Amino acid sequence: MTGAETLIKTLEKGGVDVCFANPGTSEMNLLGALDKSERIRSVLVLFEGVASGAADGYARMTDKPATTLVHLGPGFANSLANIHNARRARSPMINIVGNHATYHIKYDTPLTGDIIGLASAANNWVRQSESAESLAGDGAAALAAALTYPGQIATLIVPADHAWGHATDTATIPMIAKPQRVSQRTIDQTAETIRSGKKSALLLGGRALRERGLDAAGRIREKASVRLISETFAPRVQRGAGRVAVDRLPYFGDWIGEDLKDVDNLILVGAPPPTSFFAYKDKPSRASPDSCKVTTLAEPHEDIAAALEALAECLGAANEPAPLQQPNVPDIPSGELDAESIAACVAALLPENAIVSDESATSGLPLHNATQGAAAHDWLNLTGGSIGLGMPLATGAAIACPDRKVINLQADGSAMYTLQALWTQARENLDVTTVIYANHSYAILKYELLQTGIAETAGETAQSLLSLANPNLDWVKLAGGMGVPAGRATSVATFYQELEKGIGIKGPYLIEATIKPIL
Amino acid sequence: MTGAETLIKTLEKGGVDVCFANPGTSEMNLLGALDKSERIRSVLVLFEGVASGAADGYARMTDKPATTLVHLGPGFANSLANIHNARRARSPMINIVGNHATYHIKYDTPLTGDIIGLASAANNWVRQSESAESLAGDGAAALAAALTYPGQIATLIVPADHAWGHATDTATIPMIAKPQRVSQRTIDQTAETIRSGKKSALLLGGRALRERGLDAAGRIREKASVRLISETFAPRVQRGAGRVAVDRLPYFGDWIGEDLKDVDNLILVGAPPPTSFFAYKDKPSRASPDSCKVTTLAEPHEDIAAALEALAECLGAANEPAPLQQPNVPDIPSGELDAESIAACVAALLPENAIVSDESATSGLPLHNATQGAAAHDWLNLTGGSIGLGMPLATGAAIACPDRKVINLQADGSAMYTLQALWTQARENLDVTTVIYANHSYAILKYELLQTGIAETAGETAQSLLSLANPNLDWVKLAGGMGVPAGRATSVATFYQELEKGIGIKGPYLIEATIKPIL
Repeated sequence: MTGAETLIKTLEKGGVDVCFANPGTSEMNLLGALDKSERIRSVLVLFEGVASGAADGYARMTDKPATTLVHLGPGFANSLANIHNARRARSPMINIVGNHATYHIKYDTPLTGDIIGLASAANNWVRQSESAESLAGDGAAALAAALTYPGQIATLIVPADHAWGHATDTATIPMIAKPQRVSQRTIDQTAETIRSGKKSALLLGGRALRERGLDAAGRIREKASVRLISETFAPRVQRGAGRVAVDRLPYFGDWIGEDLKDVDNLILVGAPPPTSFFAYKDKPSRASPDSCKVTTLAEPHEDIAAALEALAECLGAANEPAPLQQPNVPDIPSGELDAESIAACVAALLPENAIVSDESATSGLPLHNATQGAAAHDWLNLTGGSIGLGMPLATGAAIACPDRKVINLQADGSAMYTLQALWTQARENLDVTTVIYANHSYAILKYELLQTGIAETAGETAQSLLSLANPNLDWVKLAGGMGVPAGRATSVATFYQELEKGIGIKGPYLIEATIKPIL
Repeated sequence: MTGAETLIKTLEKGGVDVCFANPGTSEMNLLGALDKSERIRSVLVLFEGVASGAADGYARMTDKPATTLVHLGPGFANSLANIHNARRARSPMINIVGNHATYHIKYDTPLTGDIIGLASAANNWVRQSESAESLAGDGAAALAAALTYPGQIATLIVPADHAWGHATDTATIPMIAKPQRVSQRTIDQTAETIRSGKKSALLLGGRALRERGLDAAGRIREKASVRLISETFAPRVQRGAGRVAVDRLPYFGDWIGEDLKDVDNLILVGAPPPTSFFAYKDKPSRASPDSCKVTTLAEPHEDIAAALEALAECLGAANEPAPLQQPNVPDIPSGELDAESIAACVAALLPENAIVSDESATSGLPLHNATQGAAAHDWLNLTGGSIGLGMPLATGAAIACPDRKVINLQADGSAMYTLQALWTQARENLDVTTVIYANHSYAILKYELLQTGIAETAGETAQSLLSLANPNLDWVKLAGGMGVPAGRATSVATFYQELEKGIGIKGPYLIEATIKPIL
């Protein structure tokens, strides 16, 4: 066998079944090995940021790593922005990056670069293979690293001579360690805090927002009147009718302070402390009020669901499910198409068990409340703030869950970073309905310009650098150019029709929704 | 003044007049400073790879750095692939990367990352400012680094609190050191090699391919019968009728060996030694034949034009220009549209003083010979092998030279990496005619698959990962979606008409040329 074949077969043994690929010459033997794989589905992407974003979407829906296959340093660099988001989501992922043959690197040919340096600056686990024989074991180690609970980014750099060299066999897949348990002492202390009689809230993050954790949290709320809040940008929230509904921490620091002003004890459950997303002159970074005491029940790498169950038991919560969210969606308004009316249409039409990839930015503000009582669904957020995730994430989620409808709620400025994802959706006939919020501006930045006080004096240059108008992007054409059928909506009625149509199609569809900026 | 203002004003003093920008919240004060600048033209790009590629195009045409302005680590990561190409082109460039306020970084908010690590892995010069007061001096140092002959990538990381903090004044622009002179001893030795009577060739790279260097090289050829060859991927070649014509080193190692088999002495003049672009099993990395002795007249950082002039003098070459390339273009063939006929049409229609941004990949093989006697023009190549440069490079060249027509000869697969450049061409009404070679495949990789011997056994997966078909990209729609008018050509006659039309328009135009893969 070649080294490449032992690597790919080892990953197969470890349960890997998807590779999002954009290979080049130095990856030809890896391509050859993938070609022979019966288990791994290889999916071509036309830009590497689509590969990493799709691997993230796949991982969030399966808790398993997909692989990416990319070409040398620059190809890997192109995937880094969405690797950043995936790392913040704590998604498992295995990046396979080709390198020149080891003996070739000293010639410093045009594509030579410091791949290890790039990966070290951005990843959890990085290794370059030592030989063709090492590749199988390197693959097993990458798998173990990726699956380190709840998930890590593992990057394996494969010189071409190791990929084509002879290797003996695959490697044994190591045991994956279970997540650490939270100590009974921490559980007891948290229960004591909650029993103190002051107002407590659980700030739920990461795996706390899956059904098992939410079920325990719901019973705790029912018993002890704590408030349940999700972190602002959770990787995956299981929500909708029949689930435990939780509030969502607002985005801006000021709004967080307002939201938490009555909370005496904020208990972190897999979530970071509330912090302003960005720094602003004369505003604090820490966003919780001084009166709010912040403690921790569980860190992200700990067994969060078990900790919540132990806490429920410690508090004497019932074993039966707490009252769950009832079906309840807003009426469809009759006015003009805007963020509110889009949210109402989405809530009304969301199919049972849908997956939402949300990169709606400012236009998404009404979505949380509107969809709280929609049909049960999974909601995926932009975890790392690096825009250009929504379309790739939807792509990967659709590969992971071919029987579920994926709805991508997508800001137009962010969509432009990785619009190549649409082509892969068309090629693989993925069941993704994309809604483009076409407000033709970086609306969040226009708001920030006001916030920073620069706007009072800002002239044409600043305004023009935040506007996507002149010319307006035509998303019906862009989608059509990549083989995705599309329609345009400028009124609530046509948007409702278009969304119904898109959801009715088994395959990709895109709707350009013309709206004004919300802020 | 704010720190941001002292930085931008210092760069203005140093002659910077363009900024390719995709800012975010942490760059709001830099945006404010740009807004006040009367000298610097701020150009919005919708993806950061367009910013770095455009800055490269601008630098190649002006020998001055443009700035990019990008948002934190992920925004900077998106610009790295084209920074790689620019570094290989030895283009001067100043990247301004916003960072969180210094006191905010410890909170590890979602967009926090190791920007210094990323930049260190990929750049020539990296600094993060120490304070608001340091920013002006940091800008001057970045400028000096960028202009270190022939050009470097300088990256300045600006924490938001330094940008908004108070600072006193701009900084003095340092003297830029002149390029090092090649020693007389080296000149004499080279002259001796040439006079030996054996067959010699000058391998010209970088600045050797500008008119001054070429003029001296032409006189050396006339006097001493040396062969003149350009490196394969030169940043900028001044060529066409009335210029000194040179051969071009082929791409593949085998072809290089064949091309150089009669050369006894290969003299490097700002070019690297001939090397296989990639490593192949059982093939050498070094591509020149063992019988070919390789010596160096000038390194890229030395004064190449002066070295060639000194060599010409040492050899007793005439002071008058050597015979120059006569106007001479191939006839337009009547057969089907293919790489040959496109090359003939381009050669026939290329306007005087045009700039060609060439990312034509396999489809471009006939271009060199066909355009050798076309109207005088500048030819820009994909220097670093990281695809996705052509459209941004054309964009930057058009900003640099508003009175010159830019022709972007563009492979379809490569175009998809940074197609967002078309929107900036539309917004700025840049005079760029883009020709998409629509062969619907990664043709070079299909060829490589054959080369590596994997193809004999390669199945559906491998073939499908190298094909851009199913669905075919529709470039007329993609261009239209970004506001660029476009047409399609499937015959030589319609291609000729379309190219004539595009060149006739003062502004962007795109032609999708449907062809079969050449290899």
